[in-house]
Order: sequence, then structure tokens, then C-alpha cells
Amino acid sequence: MKVIFDTDPGIDDAMALLYLSKLPEIELLGITTVVGNASIEKTTRNALYLRQRFGISAPVVQGAGETLDGVKKQEPAIVHGDDGLGNIDIPEVDRSGLDRRVASQFIIDTIKANRGEVTIIAVGRMTNLALALRAEPGIAKQVKQVIIMGGAFGYKGRSGNVTPLAEANIHGDPVAADEMFAAEWPVVVVGLDVTHDIVLDTDYLAALSRDVGANGELLAKMSEHYAQFYNNIMGINGVVGHDLLAVTYALHPEWFETRRGPIVTITEGLATGQTAQMPETRKGGDPAWSSRPVQTICTEVDGPKVLEHFRATVAG
Amino acid sequence: MKVIFDTDPGIDDAMALLYLSKLPEIELLGITTVVGNASIEKTTRNALYLRQRFGISAPVVQGAGETLDGVKKQEPAIVHGDDGLGNIDIPEVDRSGLDRRVASQFIIDTIKANRGEVTIIAVGRMTNLALALRAEPGIAKQVKQVIIMGGAFGYKGRSGNVTPLAEANIHGDPVAADEMFAAEWPVVVVGLDVTHDIVLDTDYLAALSRDVGANGELLAKMSEHYAQFYNNIMGINGVVGHDLLAVTYALHPEWFETRRGPIVTITEGLATGQTAQMPETRKGGDPAWSSRPVQTICTEVDGPKVLEHFRATVAG
Repeated sequence: MKVIFDTDPGIDDAMALLYLSKLPEIELLGITTVVGNASIEKTTRNALYLRQRFGISAPVVQGAGETLDGVKKQEPAIVHGDDGLGNIDIPEVDRSGLDRRVASQFIIDTIKANRGEVTIIAVGRMTNLALALRAEPGIAKQVKQVIIMGGAFGYKGRSGNVTPLAEANIHGDPVAADEMFAAEWPVVVVGLDVTHDIVLDTDYLAALSRDVGANGELLAKMSEHYAQFYNNIMGINGVVGHDLLAVTYALHPEWFETRRGPIVTITEGLATGQTAQMPETRKGGDPAWSSRPVQTICTEVDGPKVLEHFRATVAG
Repeated sequence: MKVIFDTDPGIDDAMALLYLSKLPEIELLGITTVVGNASIEKTTRNALYLRQRFGISAPVVQGAGETLDGVKKQEPAIVHGDDGLGNIDIPEVDRSGLDRRVASQFIIDTIKANRGEVTIIAVGRMTNLALALRAEPGIAKQVKQVIIMGGAFGYKGRSGNVTPLAEANIHGDPVAADEMFAAEWPVVVVGLDVTHDIVLDTDYLAALSRDVGANGELLAKMSEHYAQFYNNIMGINGVVGHDLLAVTYALHPEWFETRRGPIVTITEGLATGQTAQMPETRKGGDPAWSSRPVQTICTEVDGPKVLEHFRATVAG
């Protein structure tokens, strides 16, 4: 499976990157960066650091530093730390792993060079994907699959984290998200409805640190800051591994329940950043939805299986 | 329990009205009408017909025929029939049961005359309640409880029926709903998250018709039209008893699971009519929510218990 990983590291992004770099089924073609959990300079620096640290050969490609609607969103230092990786004293990075293209162009080039074979796993804002679509709409039909971490559809009361209705990756660039959902490529949405079932609690993190060598220690250390946020704001003992779950889906879709139907993103007003799907089982329906392609959202996941698979993979 | 029943009959409204008229615990003080399932002339006529038919002594009081935002919404004849009661040939009605006040004034007068004792069960648009609040904001603190059928919060994938995000009673007058949620009275929301667990299937309706006398026959006959809608559009074999579930809550809140937190209604754009709650367990949060009183939504219900209670009550 040929994969472009679009990311804004980000602590759970780092988990996802380590995870997919250890999966023999995945050939990582590139790591494209986007503003989100930190500025584009920081997320690109972090991607280069993690690439080096995890021994990844695929290039890092810098992407969008601004959202499509031009609205400046606050960087969530309270969640991911000032450095975006939980304030871990990141050393100077080797910039030789940086591709000179802009991420959207790299995405276009890579899809064209691997027609029908590329899976995009996007775990940040959808800005790079939307820019690639704007420049070359035809790429949509040449992509195998797009798996995103983003959105929230209310299952189990999970409607949003930035606002009561909006999840951060979608809220961060709702216009980009809406263009991404409208494109004629098959999108699978791994949203809060399922990611909140992936809690790496303090025992689990301690075991990673103890049993998984230096990388396990790194993930556990980064998570200390992240865990404070989850504890203070959400009352969760541990951290939520949002982004790693998009990687799991690529390999084990059978661990998920899904619902199909077209998806719209709300781009204005109090509901900005909300994702809404019209189930395809509903007849008739609103043209804002029914004019769009059918996409897939995840509604349930076997959490314990995922946590065991992640642990075994990063330990391997 | 002293109850004002605010309604737009409506087939499931008729079920709810028969149900509460048979409950010895409930003293019905008035039936206030609102535009919704049909025009205000039709819903008032239907309320008078049902009052007579069910032997109810409380008056009918005509309410709002227009929404607060002035937007004319289509009457859903496809759901409730041209007459609002499933096209059942309604005879001329006795209008002596009609109170001469407007519904919002009746609501104000009745609350003041029964300080702290009135439960409002509102199963149509929230227009009459909002008009009463606008005229006399102080009534909010004199009401015991407001139980509404309306809204949808995404539990079990139930986000809307008029649009993928909005439920009909809220979508029908979102401004009124938002003012109702913002008021300092305790609101319990019985929305699609739970009402879709109350399916009166064809066997159940046949049993009502067989075992519950003329009123059971009437409910079953009205439901024929309603069932066509559910079958064609939603793929459901039977009808959904939305409104009757608000009556159940008044007597048996212990059959429900709930979540508490302030509620906002989206009043513009594609998400118009969406209801959104910020869980009170979430720290910090958006001022659009946190400036408001905490209300209660229903997230789970024991459906079989409700269906048995309804059947036993209307048969009694």
C-alpha cells in the first residue's frame, strides 16, 4: 500500500507516523506537512525530526501555512505544547530530508506517478488536499483512497472538541474540508465518534516506555503534556490517539463499523467546522448533500484490538 | 401534575394527547395549538376534534400561525396528510371548547395562577413558548418543568429528519427554539435520539385497533398515511411515536438516560435548526453555550417499556 501521510505533528501525529513506518504492508511515499497543531515551520521541523528519529527514508514536504478562508486560528499550545510535540527539547534537525516542492504539488506529482495506487492518510487540516484538488481536479479519480482523521457526527455524544459541534482538523480549515468531501475520491472519515475509544491510559503509556525502547520512551514523554490537557479539560486519564486510528483503518477496516452517505461541512456561523452526513439510506433529501459523492464515516471501532495492534507494531 | 400541552396535531400529537388524557396523575389545564404539522386553522380544528373525541374537559387555545423569523415553512402533508391527521374525514367540530385568548397569553395566565406547579409538554414548534417568554420573561422561573419533543444530537446517528442536521419542530421555528433553550426554566429534550426507539409497527397498530376500542381504531386509521411516509422515506415498518414519548418522560424519567449542558440552536445557514449541547462535564468552553442555563437531553430510552405503558394506558 503506497501512502502519502499528510500531518501536523502533533503528538498523536508522531504516534501515527511511528506506527505506519513500522508496518511492512505500507510503503511511505512522502510526509506532507500543514499548519495546525503548531505553525507550519514547527510542524515541518517536527516532521523532519521524527523522520530522522524513526529512520524513515521518505521525504518531508512543507505544505500550507494558512487556511483557505484566511482566518487565523490559534495554535493549540495547551494541547501539543509550544513546540507541537509536548515540549521535549527538539534538537537541530537535518534538513536534507526536505523535498523542495510545496506539499500540494508533491501530492499531485505522486498521484500521477502512481495512478490508482496512492492512499492518502490525512490527519491534519485538509488544506494541502484542497489546494491539490484546486490545481488539478482530475487527481481525485486517480487516488485509491483518502483516509482522514477529522470530524464528529454525534455518535456516543461526540460532536466536537474545539466547539460543541466542531472537531479541530475540520474547524481549522472548514472550506478545505468541504472541498475535500465534495471531490470524487473515496473518503473514509475517522472522527471523534471512534477516536475517543482509543485512550492510551497511564499504564499503557508506562508499558510503551518500558517495553518499546527509545521510541516508546519518546511517545510516553511527549504524552505527559498531552495527558495534562486531557485530564484537566476532558476528565480523561491518559491521552487520545486520534491520528493513529486513521493508520489502523488503512490495514484493518474490518475492525470498524461504518455508515455511508454524502458529507457537508458547515463553513459559517456558530456551527462552523461541523461535519454532517446524509445517510444514503434516506430517500429524497437535501440537494446540498444529494449532489455530492457518497463517502464513508466510522461509527464504531474495536478499541482494545487497535491498542494491542499499535503496541505490537511499534514494539516490532 | 398540572400540564399545558402545546401541540400541532399531527398524528403522533393525537397519540400523545390520548395518552396524557388517560393518565390519572396528569391534570390537563389546556391544549395550546401552533402551526407545524398543518396550518394553525387545521391544527386548532384537529385539537378541538380530538378533545371532543377523547372526552377532554380542558380548553383548546389557538396559538401562533407564523414563525418568529417570518420564514414560511412548507406544511408536511406527505407526513401527516392534508388534514394533519392522516386524511380521516374529520367532521364539523364543536367550537365551544375554544378559549378566546391567544395561546401565549393563556400560557402566561396559567403559569401565574399555578406558580411553580405547571409542566409544559410542548410537541410542536416552540413559537407559543417563545412568545410567552418575550411578553413575560418572569414566567420562566415560575414553571416546574418544560418537556419538549424536538431536536436531535446525533446519538445512534440520529441528527435530523427535515435536513441531515435538523429535526422538524426545531427547524420549523429555530429562533423560537433558541429563545426557549436560553430561558431560565428547566428544559428536558426528548429528541430523535430517543424517539426513533418508539416504533409502533404494523402488529402493534393492529393490536391497538383490535383491543383498544374506538380510540385505538382511530389511532391505527390515522397511522396508515403516516406509515406510508415512514416506509417510503425512512425504510421503517410502522410509525414513530415521537410526541407520545414526551408524555412518558413526564411520568417515568427513570426509563431514560440523559446528559446535561447548555443548548444552542443554529438559526442560519445549512445547519439551521440544528440543536447543539455542550456537555456540562466539559471545562472552559464556548461562551455561546457557557452563558446559558444547563438543560437536559435524553440519550437513551427503554423502548419496550414505553410501548407497553402506552398500550396499557390508552386501553385503560
